[in-house]
Amino acid sequence: MASDGFRALEQKALVEYIKATPVLSQKLANQFHELTIKEVGDGNLNYVYIVSTPSASFVLKQAIPYIRCIGESWPMTKERAYFEARTLKEHGRLCPDLVPEVYHFDRKMCVIGMRYIQPPHIILRKGLIAGIEYPLLTEHISDYMARTMFFTSLLYLTTTEHKRAVAEFCGNVELCRLTEQVVFSDPYKVSQYNRCTSPYLDKDAEAIREDNALKVEIAELKSKFCERAQALLHGDLHTGSIMVASDSTQVIDPEFSFYGPMGFDIGAYIGNLILAYFSQDGHATETNDRKSYKSWILKAIEGTWNLFEKKFTALWDENKNGPGEAYLPDVYNNTEVQQLVKQKYMKELFHDTLGFGSAKMIRRIVGVAHVEDFESISEPSLRADCERRALNCAKTLLKDREKLQGIAEVVSLIQRH
Amino acid sequence: MASDGFRALEQKALVEYIKATPVLSQKLANQFHELTIKEVGDGNLNYVYIVSTPSASFVLKQAIPYIRCIGESWPMTKERAYFEARTLKEHGRLCPDLVPEVYHFDRKMCVIGMRYIQPPHIILRKGLIAGIEYPLLTEHISDYMARTMFFTSLLYLTTTEHKRAVAEFCGNVELCRLTEQVVFSDPYKVSQYNRCTSPYLDKDAEAIREDNALKVEIAELKSKFCERAQALLHGDLHTGSIMVASDSTQVIDPEFSFYGPMGFDIGAYIGNLILAYFSQDGHATETNDRKSYKSWILKAIEGTWNLFEKKFTALWDENKNGPGEAYLPDVYNNTEVQQLVKQKYMKELFHDTLGFGSAKMIRRIVGVAHVEDFESISEPSLRADCERRALNCAKTLLKDREKLQGIAEVVSLIQRH
Ligand SMILES: Nc1ncnc2c1ncn2[C@@H]1O[C@H](COP(=O)(O)OP(=O)(O)O)[C@@H](O)[C@H]1O
Ligand SMILES: Nc1ncnc2c1ncn2[C@@H]1O[C@H](COP(=O)(O)OP(=O)(O)O)[C@@H](O)[C@H]1O
Ligand SMILES: [Mg+2]
Ligand SMILES: [Mg+2]
Ligand SMILES: [Mg+2]
Ligand SMILES: [Mg+2]
Ligand SMILES: [Mg+2]
Repeated sequence: MASDGFRALEQKALVEYIKATPVLSQKLANQFHELTIKEVGDGNLNYVYIVSTPSASFVLKQAIPYIRCIGESWPMTKERAYFEARTLKEHGRLCPDLVPEVYHFDRKMCVIGMRYIQPPHIILRKGLIAGIEYPLLTEHISDYMARTMFFTSLLYLTTTEHKRAVAEFCGNVELCRLTEQVVFSDPYKVSQYNRCTSPYLDKDAEAIREDNALKVEIAELKSKFCERAQALLHGDLHTGSIMVASDSTQVIDPEFSFYGPMGFDIGAYIGNLILAYFSQDGHATETNDRKSYKSWILKAIEGTWNLFEKKFTALWDENKNGPGEAYLPDVYNNTEVQQLVKQKYMKELFHDTLGFGSAKMIRRIVGVAHVEDFESISEPSLRADCERRALNCAKTLLKDREKLQGIAEVVSLIQRH
Repeated sequence: MASDGFRALEQKALVEYIKATPVLSQKLANQFHELTIKEVGDGNLNYVYIVSTPSASFVLKQAIPYIRCIGESWPMTKERAYFEARTLKEHGRLCPDLVPEVYHFDRKMCVIGMRYIQPPHIILRKGLIAGIEYPLLTEHISDYMARTMFFTSLLYLTTTEHKRAVAEFCGNVELCRLTEQVVFSDPYKVSQYNRCTSPYLDKDAEAIREDNALKVEIAELKSKFCERAQALLHGDLHTGSIMVASDSTQVIDPEFSFYGPMGFDIGAYIGNLILAYFSQDGHATETNDRKSYKSWILKAIEGTWNLFEKKFTALWDENKNGPGEAYLPDVYNNTEVQQLVKQKYMKELFHDTLGFGSAKMIRRIVGVAHVEDFESISEPSLRADCERRALNCAKTLLKDREKLQGIAEVVSLIQRH
């Protein structure tokens, strides 16, 4: 055991840990004889265990002091578990139906005990690869984004509450630095971690590294990411951080959470839907050309922004006499000015969303961490074709985002690629 | 004495305090028989004492738990003294010739001991009213702004250092809230604290409160002020926070310091120079029409931005292989892209400067705290004329700032008003 009281839990130690932790053993009604423990982490950063008996279950997630998929050569603070638990609770308070309940948190051991999100829930990314339509997904995710961001922003919080929260989440700096590196830096330079579908995309990756106009845009986004404390973000809201069933949506894994620009979360989600869209041709078969599924994804993209905008501005209206100090009712005291400030706010947020979304797309094609949407296309030249279209779409989005007037124009742009 | 160990120091208690504080009594070589103590605070927030013997001197500044010029009815944390001392030391480290040295800080008693800035130094605002030219002022202030902002921004600091400092200065939230209220809110609504040169400016003040376009702009600036942690700012850099002699410039009183948008400091200074410019006609006499002095102020405005820009971008060039992680040399690896990112950065900063500068001008004419530049014009209708021209200039600047291409255009705009 390390001097700070931390030790990585293996199968046997896990059982002892559960027995020694009242809240966890009570969950199992102290029935340990038919206990099963299964590691299900997809292996990126942490260990995730499903703990169950015939009548009860929960999930234990443990952070370790390095990046699991790379190894001890890339150390990463295990304190990330603290911020993950903190944000699961905070976002769970705001969206109890969309975030798993936290039963237990052990800061020394970096262990979170939370509700087991049971089958038929699967990771959304896998559902998108399988071509499954989720009729409530857009409704749910737009709810999650509107509520978590509105209620943690200065539109709802006082300056005092906001600055206190900002100060606390400054502590998650190592995870922010990881994002800075893999999203905003590495794809634009030669880096040992970068990879792409080689040799097909070698020239495309090189073009990214030599595109001055793109580097100017990415610099602006990076500084917003580092400097603008707009709301408590999830920080890693891609389609692999969402579990879905036909009637349920659950957002997990907010270990990258921090106070940042709202467009970063919305962009992560929409950018990953766009990646899913461009991967569909790689998953088409003789019996399923994926055409109608591609339309469904485009509708999800359009609906997400539109519903988010509607819900977010509705929260703003409902709470305009609330605690938030950003737009005092005595100043913003007529419907015209209330309309004008909302339009301006949402316009900037829309352009941020497109910027961060396209940055997230680019990094998944020429950076260190790729997405299963493309990786599961086994024929490399077909995969490269899909990726290239996504990459070109992302480059145009990033450079021309301020010219785009609304999400319908974004959908047209996607369809033209 | 309050339970937290604080007590406001009066004349007699001050002597005891000095005697009981080794670093202070040593400064006076323990010569207490010819000690004089003179209160010189101009009475806004705090008490300032000049402590001297025939051979030695220093200044003691004490914060009290309310706003001195309003009284105990407007409480204000005395912890502001901590942030003032902290920033005096940090900015003093970066600009030792431009910031008084801190000898002593007592957190419980909220007392700062610092170098006495001796005559012929006077407060710059008084020098501007008297029509005195300061040949080195622009050189010095552009140095102060370039160095304090560059070295506390992500252009020089690592993300880790930056976030640690941001978190610490989130603690100065009460002073930030005061700025939010008096700069970004009160002038745009009916407030008991607002005043103006009545009845002359009543309609002008009312027009501000009914100007939707202005309210949209001020909202954007307010959110930048609250959310964008770009550099460690002075926070109150008007011409009353600067002491000058012909060959020396000293920046005092950073109790409002926080991590915010750089344009807020540059704008405070330039906005107050513009106020000084518009007040000159009120100080003209038969023997001095102030025409040449007005030209000098315009040159100071133009020179401040131009020199700031030159020095700031020179620091950027010199430190491009330094610790800062914002623009990695491997990404920004050719002179064209280096030029492009600097141009974009400075363009946004220029527009921020004009926005914050004009917001500061407006609040000094229709808000709670006015400036001696205008207050010392005893004929109210003459004063109102000067103020109205400044106010109209500020409104145009605030609304049209993004159309202005450079500081020379700002100077033309000022001259047209
Ligand atoms: N509460 C949960 N219920 C069910 N499965 C979960 C739960 N949390 C995580 N998982 C599974 O474990 C995987 C990894 O979890 P995640 O929190 O994303 O870890 P990491 O931070 O390592 O990416 C998820 O993709 C999901 O399959
Ligand atoms: N170090 C100093 N040396 C000389 N005079 C000083 C010094 N600090 C403050 N003063 C004088 O005291 C006045 C008030 O100080 P200041 O720091 O601006 O206090 P406040 O925070 O109350 O505005 C200044 O205008 C200046 O005349
Ligand atoms: Mg995950
Ligand atoms: Mg994770
Ligand atoms: Mg703009
Ligand atoms: Mg002062
Ligand atoms: Mg002060």
